[in-house]
Amino acid sequence: MSADFLASLRPEALGAPPSGIVEVMNYGRTREGLIPLWAGEGDLPTPRFIADAATRSLAAGETFYTWQRGIPELRTALARYHERLFGQSFDPERFYVTGSGMHAIQTVLTALAGPGDEVIVPTPAWPNFAAASGLRGARVVEVPMNFGNAGWSLDFDRLAAAVTPATRVLFLNSPCNPTGWTATRADLEAMLALARRHGLWIVADEVYTRFVYDGAFRAPSFHDVATAEDRVIYVNTFSKNWAMTGWRIGWIEADPSLGPVIENLIQYSSSGVAVFMQRAAVAALDHGDEFIAHQIDRAGASRKIIVDALRATGKVRFADPGAFYLFFSVDGETDTSKLGLRLVDEANVGLAPGTAFGAAGQGFLRLCFARGPDSLSEVARRLVKWLEIRDGLRSK
Amino acid sequence: MSADFLASLRPEALGAPPSGIVEVMNYGRTREGLIPLWAGEGDLPTPRFIADAATRSLAAGETFYTWQRGIPELRTALARYHERLFGQSFDPERFYVTGSGMHAIQTVLTALAGPGDEVIVPTPAWPNFAAASGLRGARVVEVPMNFGNAGWSLDFDRLAAAVTPATRVLFLNSPCNPTGWTATRADLEAMLALARRHGLWIVADEVYTRFVYDGAFRAPSFHDVATAEDRVIYVNTFSKNWAMTGWRIGWIEADPSLGPVIENLIQYSSSGVAVFMQRAAVAALDHGDEFIAHQIDRAGASRKIIVDALRATGKVRFADPGAFYLFFSVDGETDTSKLGLRLVDEANVGLAPGTAFGAAGQGFLRLCFARGPDSLSEVARRLVKWLEIRDGLRSK
Repeated sequence: MSADFLASLRPEALGAPPSGIVEVMNYGRTREGLIPLWAGEGDLPTPRFIADAATRSLAAGETFYTWQRGIPELRTALARYHERLFGQSFDPERFYVTGSGMHAIQTVLTALAGPGDEVIVPTPAWPNFAAASGLRGARVVEVPMNFGNAGWSLDFDRLAAAVTPATRVLFLNSPCNPTGWTATRADLEAMLALARRHGLWIVADEVYTRFVYDGAFRAPSFHDVATAEDRVIYVNTFSKNWAMTGWRIGWIEADPSLGPVIENLIQYSSSGVAVFMQRAAVAALDHGDEFIAHQIDRAGASRKIIVDALRATGKVRFADPGAFYLFFSVDGETDTSKLGLRLVDEANVGLAPGTAFGAAGQGFLRLCFARGPDSLSEVARRLVKWLEIRDGLRSK
Repeated sequence: MSADFLASLRPEALGAPPSGIVEVMNYGRTREGLIPLWAGEGDLPTPRFIADAATRSLAAGETFYTWQRGIPELRTALARYHERLFGQSFDPERFYVTGSGMHAIQTVLTALAGPGDEVIVPTPAWPNFAAASGLRGARVVEVPMNFGNAGWSLDFDRLAAAVTPATRVLFLNSPCNPTGWTATRADLEAMLALARRHGLWIVADEVYTRFVYDGAFRAPSFHDVATAEDRVIYVNTFSKNWAMTGWRIGWIEADPSLGPVIENLIQYSSSGVAVFMQRAAVAALDHGDEFIAHQIDRAGASRKIIVDALRATGKVRFADPGAFYLFFSVDGETDTSKLGLRLVDEANVGLAPGTAFGAAGQGFLRLCFARGPDSLSEVARRLVKWLEIRDGLRSK
């Protein structure tokens, strides 16, 4: 009977892949003392001043239906934030509030891709873009990035070779989850040139743009190279910058001419975002710069600890990352799905297997370092010790 | 340039219809003293005890990622609520928390319908189900209901005649938005028999089941007639019962065997609902019965006022409604899209045109009576006076 129910579902729905991280999370969720670095979130709750803005709105009875595109105050605050970040002026009409970055992606894909279309995704990549593309009936074409002595790199000849007459969308996530790779301005120009040549849309996920560790204010952005005529749509989230992962609020930035279509797509998927959530988002944008700086400092210190400790072992390979993930391989370990489970048992550390991010992630593990330095020191200690025991080098 | 952007979007996205209510809302939104009865929401903010549960959760820092299917406490509370409502036991594993009733519908449609499929919708109907079906690439087949002396009725021969080999889903919203029609147990049995005969899924929208005015505790439900082997999925929302329209939280009830698929579909659309929202939903379910009773009493008193006043004019046709909408025609008025705009100007009352609910709604207007009796008395006064003036009968 149950099997009968499943058999009657649409193939796209049945084909949606389970998260490759959930297996290890379920395996390790209840382990005492386990340090969980498998998810893409830090350990800080949302700052009080942000939560308080939601609380005040709730107390004021802002519990009714509202604008599908987002309240004007939030769209204006988004424009202000972008002006600070990119040194350009932004029309508030470019911004559309969504019920998470994921919802932003789903909405954009509904506008851009469907049966018969192809979307190109450099991998390793956060898997949700590809999965959401599949649910639209589009074909996902993975373009594996290269990992070598210079770290991760995207081969633009290989990217260009993946374009067919059916290609509609190029997806780019930079700084990248999971690899930490951060596109240079030249990379972005190369991708934009490819998109222009073939009339493709670029969906730009620059969620981690603030998480760079070279002293820059932000990573290079398509805002630095694209013009108003370019087919670039941005998807973004409040989750990472402002420690609001659990809130489910994000945004799309797109040409205002797309407004009526995006509004309809929001109407027929989520029908908008709670006003009290949006008030919190305004507070985050207008008063959150100090918190972002604190988060980046903290992640930077933790990054240094884990990078230094693992590099010193000589048995772990990775590139110095942006975003807040270390994506590394361990000499002698090829099956990192199993290794993720073993590390729960043997090191009491929770990491995500690289295969959760596409075939190109095989042999890697993703470690989220958006936590305090003490926590990462302990993780480093556990992983180094685990390597020593594995290799029979521990004397005690 | 803008036109160029639009031309490159998917036809399904371009074809998503704008809300038929927005035109009149935009026309009348800022009119002083206008009484807005165009939307499907009441005038009460969310009860304080519900908002307080969210506030407490926020203050406790529950701002992290959580279960895609919903927190166990909420799924258990949903089971308890259903047990009270239907006098049967419910497995918490049947419930999946979504980011609105609309998101529940989108999720279910993604599982059930796509290109090549047909979904059948009796009309007049809340337009979002059909629009969301279109966005999945499915074909929507409207089956107009009949309006006669006995009120609205669904012709099951006509419904059966609409079934083709491509039919996958029968949608039923009872009590119905906008007509107020409420299916009898015999109606539900007839629809279920049809679904069984052809192996179709029923998507049951029983959102307004509590809003009946004959003294019953609830309307007839597919829970009264379906067995565990039947292909029935329920979509629901916290919006109406608990005055939480702006929150965006709802649920799906479906066989537990669909759990992994539904979880993936939530992952790749909204990635879950904020824990603090879910805490509020638990409070609503566990402590909201008194508020629901108050809302229904209030809507019932308002319903009587508007029904009595309009019936007394002899110029307005309608059936005594369930849900909280009066769906009526006005003698001598055929274009109710224009009439909606005129009533803003001439009566300072905001109503939704019937055409927003499908072609079968032509000639009708929808009035939401989920407001206090004073408000509806004033609406009745304005509409009666408007009719008098229109017909040159007013002496003063």
